Amino acid sequence: MQQIVDFILELEKLKGVARKVRPLGQDRYENSAEHSWQIAMLAASLAPFAESAIDINRVIAMLLVHDIGEIDTGDTMVFAEGGWDERKAAEQMAVQRIFGLLPEPQSAMFLALWREFDEGQSAEARFAHAADRAMPVLLNLANDGQSWRENGISHERVVRRIGPPIQAGCPALWQYLEGRLQEAREHGWFGA
Amino acid sequence: MQQIVDFILELEKLKGVARKVRPLGQDRYENSAEHSWQIAMLAASLAPFAESAIDINRVIAMLLVHDIGEIDTGDTMVFAEGGWDERKAAEQMAVQRIFGLLPEPQSAMFLALWREFDEGQSAEARFAHAADRAMPVLLNLANDGQSWRENGISHERVVRRIGPPIQAGCPALWQYLEGRLQEAREHGWFGA
Repeated sequence: MQQIVDFILELEKLKGVARKVRPLGQDRYENSAEHSWQIAMLAASLAPFAESAIDINRVIAMLLVHDIGEIDTGDTMVFAEGGWDERKAAEQMAVQRIFGLLPEPQSAMFLALWREFDEGQSAEARFAHAADRAMPVLLNLANDGQSWRENGISHERVVRRIGPPIQAGCPALWQYLEGRLQEAREHGWFGA
Repeated sequence: MQQIVDFILELEKLKGVARKVRPLGQDRYENSAEHSWQIAMLAASLAPFAESAIDINRVIAMLLVHDIGEIDTGDTMVFAEGGWDERKAAEQMAVQRIFGLLPEPQSAMFLALWREFDEGQSAEARFAHAADRAMPVLLNLANDGQSWRENGISHERVVRRIGPPIQAGCPALWQYLEGRLQEAREHGWFGA
């Protein structure tokens, strides 16, 4: 029991990992713990629109654990250029340390979920990636492009980076977002 | 798709619902969105210790939605005395409004999960309640009783209020907590 308690208290640190977007109506930045909750809810809500048959429970479990490596590495914006291999290696070490606080079978179970998301190959992982990529876009669309403007992100870069993974996991969502992103461009909500 | 987007943006407000305990090492109060994520992780980690056979996926889904009514009502500490009937009625109206933003079947599915948790009768709901009640206790035990001291909560009141639901859903967890709460009393971490 003490191992589980040590693990769950280690997770406290994810509440302190700041992302680049602000929750609507708040001055602070979003943290990765509340983001993980919200994308689990987004995936559950979007399940009927998945690109192929999925086990939504595994998607939810993947989304709950997918950012835990950031406890050691911090959040990196999806638009960062370069450094991804080093970052991946650091995240792998992080999740081995953190899930290693747990007894088996929980430790191996969480690590397998994290790896499935990271590899992005299964239908569940593709759908999970679509939800993860879409959420900051939805917030920016409701926020006049706050994190796009603050970080100098262009319309073209958003479309290039998030279009393919969202299309692959949840085509109906990408169809919706494509139109909204075009409107956002007309509003001048991009940063470059 | 627009209905799902409206729903997920409504959920932003849960990131602004303040609870009574502070995340470890942070000055601010915890919000109900990050709490929902953490108790889903706690339940997944504790699953082998459930009092009876459970579908852990339903437990996780229940925990992700159980606090959403607080968007309209705010958080009430578990040690509040009185006013529970009015509060329950307000939360019911809230979840009908919020889940009502969604199309079917998602709307009815989330409402059923919320009600199952609220009724607290199924094995899954009992286990979910155990995780929900235990989490602030674990934080207080790591925080020198911060929210117990700030709110004048006695050892006896904690044991009386959280002992039975945790024992009912996860007896091994209660056995662990009983000893830790006794140590906390010896440290003077209670407020009355």
